[in-house]
Amino acid sequence: MKIITFGELLLRLQPEGYYRFVQVDKMTSTFGGAEANVAVSLANFGEDSFFVTKLPCHEIGQSAVNSLRRFGVKTEYIVRGGNRVGIYFNERGASQRPSKCIYDRAGSAIALSQKSDFDWNKILEGADWFHFTGVTPALGGELPEICIEACKTANAKRIPVSCDLNYRSKLWSKQQAKETMEKIAPYIDICISNEEDAMDVFGISADDTDIENGKLSKEGYKNVARKLSEKYGFKKVAITLRSSINASRNKWAALFYDGTDCFFSREYDMAIVDRLGGGDSFCAGLIYSILRNENSQRAVEFASAASCLKHSIEGDFNMVSVEEVEHLAHGDSSGRIQR
Amino acid sequence: MKIITFGELLLRLQPEGYYRFVQVDKMTSTFGGAEANVAVSLANFGEDSFFVTKLPCHEIGQSAVNSLRRFGVKTEYIVRGGNRVGIYFNERGASQRPSKCIYDRAGSAIALSQKSDFDWNKILEGADWFHFTGVTPALGGELPEICIEACKTANAKRIPVSCDLNYRSKLWSKQQAKETMEKIAPYIDICISNEEDAMDVFGISADDTDIENGKLSKEGYKNVARKLSEKYGFKKVAITLRSSINASRNKWAALFYDGTDCFFSREYDMAIVDRLGGGDSFCAGLIYSILRNENSQRAVEFASAASCLKHSIEGDFNMVSVEEVEHLAHGDSSGRIQR
Amino acid sequence: MKIITFGELLLRLQPEGYYRFVQVDKMTSTFGGAEANVAVSLANFGEDSFFVTKLPCHEIGQSAVNSLRRFGVKTEYIVRGGNRVGIYFNERGASQRPSKCIYDRAGSAIALSQKSDFDWNKILEGADWFHFTGVTPALGGELPEICIEACKTANAKRIPVSCDLNYRSKLWSKQQAKETMEKIAPYIDICISNEEDAMDVFGISADDTDIENGKLSKEGYKNVARKLSEKYGFKKVAITLRSSINASRNKWAALFYDGTDCFFSREYDMAIVDRLGGGDSFCAGLIYSILRNENSQRAVEFASAASCLKHSIEGDFNMVSVEEVEHLAHGDSSGRIQR
Amino acid sequence: MKIITFGELLLRLQPEGYYRFVQVDKMTSTFGGAEANVAVSLANFGEDSFFVTKLPCHEIGQSAVNSLRRFGVKTEYIVRGGNRVGIYFNERGASQRPSKCIYDRAGSAIALSQKSDFDWNKILEGADWFHFTGVTPALGGELPEICIEACKTANAKRIPVSCDLNYRSKLWSKQQAKETMEKIAPYIDICISNEEDAMDVFGISADDTDIENGKLSKEGYKNVARKLSEKYGFKKVAITLRSSINASRNKWAALFYDGTDCFFSREYDMAIVDRLGGGDSFCAGLIYSILRNENSQRAVEFASAASCLKHSIEGDFNMVSVEEVEHLAHGDSSGRIQR
Amino acid sequence: MKIITFGELLLRLQPEGYYRFVQVDKMTSTFGGAEANVAVSLANFGEDSFFVTKLPCHEIGQSAVNSLRRFGVKTEYIVRGGNRVGIYFNERGASQRPSKCIYDRAGSAIALSQKSDFDWNKILEGADWFHFTGVTPALGGELPEICIEACKTANAKRIPVSCDLNYRSKLWSKQQAKETMEKIAPYIDICISNEEDAMDVFGISADDTDIENGKLSKEGYKNVARKLSEKYGFKKVAITLRSSINASRNKWAALFYDGTDCFFSREYDMAIVDRLGGGDSFCAGLIYSILRNENSQRAVEFASAASCLKHSIEGDFNMVSVEEVEHLAHGDSSGRIQR
Amino acid sequence: MKIITFGELLLRLQPEGYYRFVQVDKMTSTFGGAEANVAVSLANFGEDSFFVTKLPCHEIGQSAVNSLRRFGVKTEYIVRGGNRVGIYFNERGASQRPSKCIYDRAGSAIALSQKSDFDWNKILEGADWFHFTGVTPALGGELPEICIEACKTANAKRIPVSCDLNYRSKLWSKQQAKETMEKIAPYIDICISNEEDAMDVFGISADDTDIENGKLSKEGYKNVARKLSEKYGFKKVAITLRSSINASRNKWAALFYDGTDCFFSREYDMAIVDRLGGGDSFCAGLIYSILRNENSQRAVEFASAASCLKHSIEGDFNMVSVEEVEHLAHGDSSGRIQR
Repeated sequence: MKIITFGELLLRLQPEGYYRFVQVDKMTSTFGGAEANVAVSLANFGEDSFFVTKLPCHEIGQSAVNSLRRFGVKTEYIVRGGNRVGIYFNERGASQRPSKCIYDRAGSAIALSQKSDFDWNKILEGADWFHFTGVTPALGGELPEICIEACKTANAKRIPVSCDLNYRSKLWSKQQAKETMEKIAPYIDICISNEEDAMDVFGISADDTDIENGKLSKEGYKNVARKLSEKYGFKKVAITLRSSINASRNKWAALFYDGTDCFFSREYDMAIVDRLGGGDSFCAGLIYSILRNENSQRAVEFASAASCLKHSIEGDFNMVSVEEVEHLAHGDSSGRIQR
Repeated sequence: MKIITFGELLLRLQPEGYYRFVQVDKMTSTFGGAEANVAVSLANFGEDSFFVTKLPCHEIGQSAVNSLRRFGVKTEYIVRGGNRVGIYFNERGASQRPSKCIYDRAGSAIALSQKSDFDWNKILEGADWFHFTGVTPALGGELPEICIEACKTANAKRIPVSCDLNYRSKLWSKQQAKETMEKIAPYIDICISNEEDAMDVFGISADDTDIENGKLSKEGYKNVARKLSEKYGFKKVAITLRSSINASRNKWAALFYDGTDCFFSREYDMAIVDRLGGGDSFCAGLIYSILRNENSQRAVEFASAASCLKHSIEGDFNMVSVEEVEHLAHGDSSGRIQR
Repeated sequence: MKIITFGELLLRLQPEGYYRFVQVDKMTSTFGGAEANVAVSLANFGEDSFFVTKLPCHEIGQSAVNSLRRFGVKTEYIVRGGNRVGIYFNERGASQRPSKCIYDRAGSAIALSQKSDFDWNKILEGADWFHFTGVTPALGGELPEICIEACKTANAKRIPVSCDLNYRSKLWSKQQAKETMEKIAPYIDICISNEEDAMDVFGISADDTDIENGKLSKEGYKNVARKLSEKYGFKKVAITLRSSINASRNKWAALFYDGTDCFFSREYDMAIVDRLGGGDSFCAGLIYSILRNENSQRAVEFASAASCLKHSIEGDFNMVSVEEVEHLAHGDSSGRIQR
Repeated sequence: MKIITFGELLLRLQPEGYYRFVQVDKMTSTFGGAEANVAVSLANFGEDSFFVTKLPCHEIGQSAVNSLRRFGVKTEYIVRGGNRVGIYFNERGASQRPSKCIYDRAGSAIALSQKSDFDWNKILEGADWFHFTGVTPALGGELPEICIEACKTANAKRIPVSCDLNYRSKLWSKQQAKETMEKIAPYIDICISNEEDAMDVFGISADDTDIENGKLSKEGYKNVARKLSEKYGFKKVAITLRSSINASRNKWAALFYDGTDCFFSREYDMAIVDRLGGGDSFCAGLIYSILRNENSQRAVEFASAASCLKHSIEGDFNMVSVEEVEHLAHGDSSGRIQR
Repeated sequence: MKIITFGELLLRLQPEGYYRFVQVDKMTSTFGGAEANVAVSLANFGEDSFFVTKLPCHEIGQSAVNSLRRFGVKTEYIVRGGNRVGIYFNERGASQRPSKCIYDRAGSAIALSQKSDFDWNKILEGADWFHFTGVTPALGGELPEICIEACKTANAKRIPVSCDLNYRSKLWSKQQAKETMEKIAPYIDICISNEEDAMDVFGISADDTDIENGKLSKEGYKNVARKLSEKYGFKKVAITLRSSINASRNKWAALFYDGTDCFFSREYDMAIVDRLGGGDSFCAGLIYSILRNENSQRAVEFASAASCLKHSIEGDFNMVSVEEVEHLAHGDSSGRIQR
Repeated sequence: MKIITFGELLLRLQPEGYYRFVQVDKMTSTFGGAEANVAVSLANFGEDSFFVTKLPCHEIGQSAVNSLRRFGVKTEYIVRGGNRVGIYFNERGASQRPSKCIYDRAGSAIALSQKSDFDWNKILEGADWFHFTGVTPALGGELPEICIEACKTANAKRIPVSCDLNYRSKLWSKQQAKETMEKIAPYIDICISNEEDAMDVFGISADDTDIENGKLSKEGYKNVARKLSEKYGFKKVAITLRSSINASRNKWAALFYDGTDCFFSREYDMAIVDRLGGGDSFCAGLIYSILRNENSQRAVEFASAASCLKHSIEGDFNMVSVEEVEHLAHGDSSGRIQR
């Protein structure tokens, strides 16, 4: 299936292991970004996955392109130009010490891109899905408009549109997010959110929930999903539910409202290797399942098993196959070696 | 004591940390193999430990030899020749993601070795123990016969013979394993198995046990031990019991049937550094204890403490001293630093 | 505030990750030492932190000095001379395998230093605090006398003196420690101890406590604090309470006796990255809080939150800011990423 | 332009820096192989470059595929199956110590591939060039026939066929090479050789040349080129001329006989970073130039500049752009930084 | 002596060894910048060296500050604020392949700094020297004015002002450079240039010189120095003369016109480890020598020996002592080990 | 042949690549020492090579033992005890920057060893050669006497004794060296020296030689060899001749006076990877050749080819085989790859 994702691909600079920024003189330099992570996941699932962005012509831009090609993502719609690849510095947390993320993405090629850079009619030609996240309009400039144009084109072509709210307080305020996302919401078919985004972006919260203390109410989130659907017309809503025991250990589950009923996945107790991209891998799993017309329970199990595995993998990208996801989704979470 | 182990020594290629195969351009290159792991453990315990195998003359073969010499294993009975050092690629699992093992050992020097390569009369001259595992006959070619010849020679010299069943589904089918191992069984004095091997190889299972869900029945395994002894005439049987909570955390215990009674070790709750070689380190601990005429309870405690420590150590080899094992076996599992 | 710490700064050589000494041909080479760790912590909190020691002129000595300057510690009172930088080799433990520490510090520049090397009148001029630990007199030579001279000078200038008992069985016997520390005790205002030191050094133990099995009695330690204060005249006493579940997981809390009442911090359940310097980071947090006249409950919470974070950080030094400590001390221990 | 290359892609395992095999426990694990190197070079030049081989389905096979995709090589004609990725161990030489190469490629997926694995009609459909080297038939099995079939198909479609003789004494004897290559020669349009291959494979040597002492006669090689063309009907012949001063320093030039005249490139004095793939990068440069109808002098200059740059680059692949090659080919060999 | 340097300190990201950007997923992350390099050199020579810039408050900014403190540079005049640390990506060249530098420094804290950020009266209070380079005004914004203000303040306080022309074509055009630098020139006492800058910035060239072919005319540069002095009123002019044989080997010498005569240093034939910061280390050596009133021949020898050594050192900073420079300047360039 | 070497084995700590001490937080940790280097070389040549020293029981001592066992050196005569493994810090030089060596070996187990530690009668039983260097007596304590005892025992058993003068100015003065070495000289059969030692230790210099400027007179060294033989009664004398162009490039040759005539080896122009152990690898080559009764020309060629190769190898140990040495000694120094 031809799937289009649109967003920023950033250079991710990270001290190795558990070192803090001020301790190192070497960093891993990989690439990632909410939508690109979805694209790679889907390529790993065997889909015809195209990522759309703008990247400079120089070698750092080329390395970004290569990081996608390597895993089978199609890069022919990537526009080349501009000067900067956006950067984010990430420091891995452990135990009671949170991960730390420093953005250095202002002025990146995609942030300065213009409507004329993207020919959505051509890009979405024959596509089966269009996905983006709230990070893309949050980059500002013409991006909110570009997102709307892309969505409209998809709507016109009857291509399903999914959006992960992905609120980033370092990119915009809740007020700004609300204003912009409410403009985009009408064009979205499937809305994906984590346990905080719906509140941060749309002001819709779950009762009986205290996120900082890791207490999440399943019932409360059912209401969140229903309210989102009612208020904004989303056909389906999925919400990931992370209970953060500490930076090294999280619980993880998800609910999926398919327009009729709510379905919860099993909950995973995860030793964290790398939590970044956890939500994105869920999106990819959900898109994959919906495109295959899996029933709603299987869909949410597949999506949350995929994202559970992501937490055990270094980097932004979820490097797992459909078989590996299904092995876990179907019940074997013992991590036993096969040989 | 002079102890002879016989089997394959492989080059182990592994991505560092928790990286997956498809993410890396560097791998650790160490050596390991079921029987060689036992040999190194025993050398670390101060025994006169000889490893027997066949390895090519080139530098990769030499590196394999050196990896044993470094830790005091005697290598003079290693036959040099052939072209390949067997290889296994290993990817470390984490949390719900299992470790992954890819064998590339076909055509190795030992797999193609011939009966005439080994003069068992000379090798076993003055030996106090002979050990091998089910992996060695599983390599095929003349190896089943070579194993039988080695066992017969040991039997004739009244040298105790131990064998770890070590079933490997990637090397042979259960049917093949059963046929061959039943031919070898009569020559074995001490049989060692993990919670699955007895079923996979000899079709003897524990009641009330569900390995994938980490539920193991102690009583059930007593019966397994007794049945193995009865059916195949093993004088002693030991069974290791791994409950895999996930790839990062396992519980570990063992039972030892000394021909009269069954003895269980304490159970350890382990944070896993490297689970490979866990069973081999148990074998070494058991051999060491039996050779010292330790009572059965102490023997199984020493063996399981040794293998508990192995899980905290990188690589195939168990790099611990008798003192370290006894410190744990005698009760201090708090991991407190001494300084 | 001008804070003076005095002790040894050692080269710390450590295999990467969980490798054992005998497995590696590369080691991280950083610097640390009980008092220097306190100095760096305080510099990271924004204090005017001066470290006093003696170090050779050569490049290894210079690297030691640089390791402090890098993080803002003032090094102008460091005496240059002598031949050796003391060394300690450290092997990180995991699960049931304890960390292992090998000292190679005999004959270091500071161990051979003389009273004439240090002009305490000048060093302590205008200082607000003086801190050292039991490790410094344990180095022998003239160091017990030098410590007493420093303490007397501080006392005369009405500068608070804190001492962490820090008993090291590899440096001196309990008998030696007791004799020397009892001579120094009269000059100490604030005494800091871990759950074992008070017994090892002064023979004062907590009832109902079994350290090897991780059972610590809160009530018992209240008595220890009071007895220490009564017997040796310490104005305040703090005791850190580590329950070692295993080398990878510890519980951590502290009590602070402010001369009137005992205050306990909350207890943290920690996944260990590096346990060395845990007690030192507590000292720094306590000094910082007392100098700011925080109330006793807040002081012990700040100090134990600081040291909780230290356990998640590589190396001896606690690389955290006041804000980070307060974030944890004020209750968010979920380790959630902010972005 | 659509360019097809056919051969083996191997896992290359190499100690870092100048370490010898027996000294290391870590190796770089990249991929390379004579024809794949040409494919990557051409993709870096912007060509539509397709590599044809057979690789196993497992993750090591997938990593091999990814290594090509990453740099833009099209991998859709790669057949998946078999068990082994061929391996070569490489130890970098320095000064008077030569590089050392140990092959472990027997039984690889491509070596065991069959005629039916490749549909040359489809693969060569619309192609502008077909390239392979003497290594491919040297792998034995059905590969000589497969090569002939591929060549014949190309000939029928009037697609130019180039072959680099690439004699490997560890794969076959000179006698075997001669017999097989003489069968293939009639289908080859452009023959490429280094200073030794023509002699080793076809018994045609240059007068007045002593390769071990680094003395090469330009005139002598003109005759070699002409003789090759006359005897075997090659339309064009190129010969690379390496004068090995030592393992760290080589001189490098080439001659190109275009069927009419001989053209020599300038000679480069190279500090060697990695000499492997030097000849392959020459082939890629020559193919690129001929496809662009460059005149013969420019063609040989471009090809030898490309391969000169390769010697400064780690790994098998020549990671340079057309612009970089032209900058050197047009005369600036000063290596001055631009900023 | 109190020496003030002013400019940008950048994060330098570089693939290890000779890898190209597109090949790596790890980079060294150190700091450097023309003026900061001078500051570190001078601190290593024992001077009271202060670096002035603006850096963000976050951890990347703090790491930049720490990189200077570590080597003794005084950082109290560094203004904290802004969002970005400027970045440059550097790829090390080898042999015929040039190093490649990609700037990502637009919008850095210093580039957006304002006149009000710097209180030059206070900064230059009691200073003995002020140094900056052409890179600082080239950053644009208010920086040309800020430089002029700094220079004027220094002139008023009779503090010598040195400026290294340091033309960077990626920051501004020759035309822009000329206009701005001609405005600043009147405030400069000592002008330092490399073999190209005088031409690029002021249009003054050496006769009989062909830089790309490594041919430099000593006589010609004497005239350049004299003309610069005459036209712009510089009291002293120094010119470094790099003959680039290739990226791995350069020849290096310098001339110093002290207002009366021209003095040439000896020429060094250098195997390059890291050529960046070569000119900066020359500036530091010259400033050091002039401040010590060395005679002109000794001054140019010291400065060029210092910069010769820099080429053997990784990173931007010249990590050498006065003794090491003098050892080379006084004639022993044999590199013999002392032990 | 059974060959005994006696001396210190040190931990060698070295920054990777060309980094200076003050730049790193990681070091390679290998082992080496003049006599141990000879022992490893000889084991690599296939000899029965025994190294004698004293090393602590702890893991650093064990790692030292293992470093020898790994390469086949017999370690059964190594005495275990004492507290320290001697250390040397080494910083690799480049171009005009010399390597830097910092010793931290005072108080090592061997330096504090006593005559009673070594039973020379037993150790030298059946030995074919005894070798040590001037470094061993230079360690002081009882070592001069222990060396003399060892030599006397060897003399009594008619075992050839070789000694490399190996003067170390950081261990003792020329005066001390002369006094002690003159006492030992009568027991030495074969004296080995570099171009400086004979002058430094015995005051015998070559005419027409200027070592700092890399000018060595062949004729002059012939006289040195003869004078050494005449004055001290050495049966044979070998002198290595290093011309240090710079730290990255040396020329290397040797002369061998066999008691009758002088024989010069060819001279090698070497790109240096690691110059340490260069002289030791020469000793090993010479001992090997003499034990095989090679003629004097072949002996000096073999020894200098061995040491030429050592300069291309990381670490103290010369990891080359007899075949590799002969390949070079017989004339192929082109460093061409074989494949």
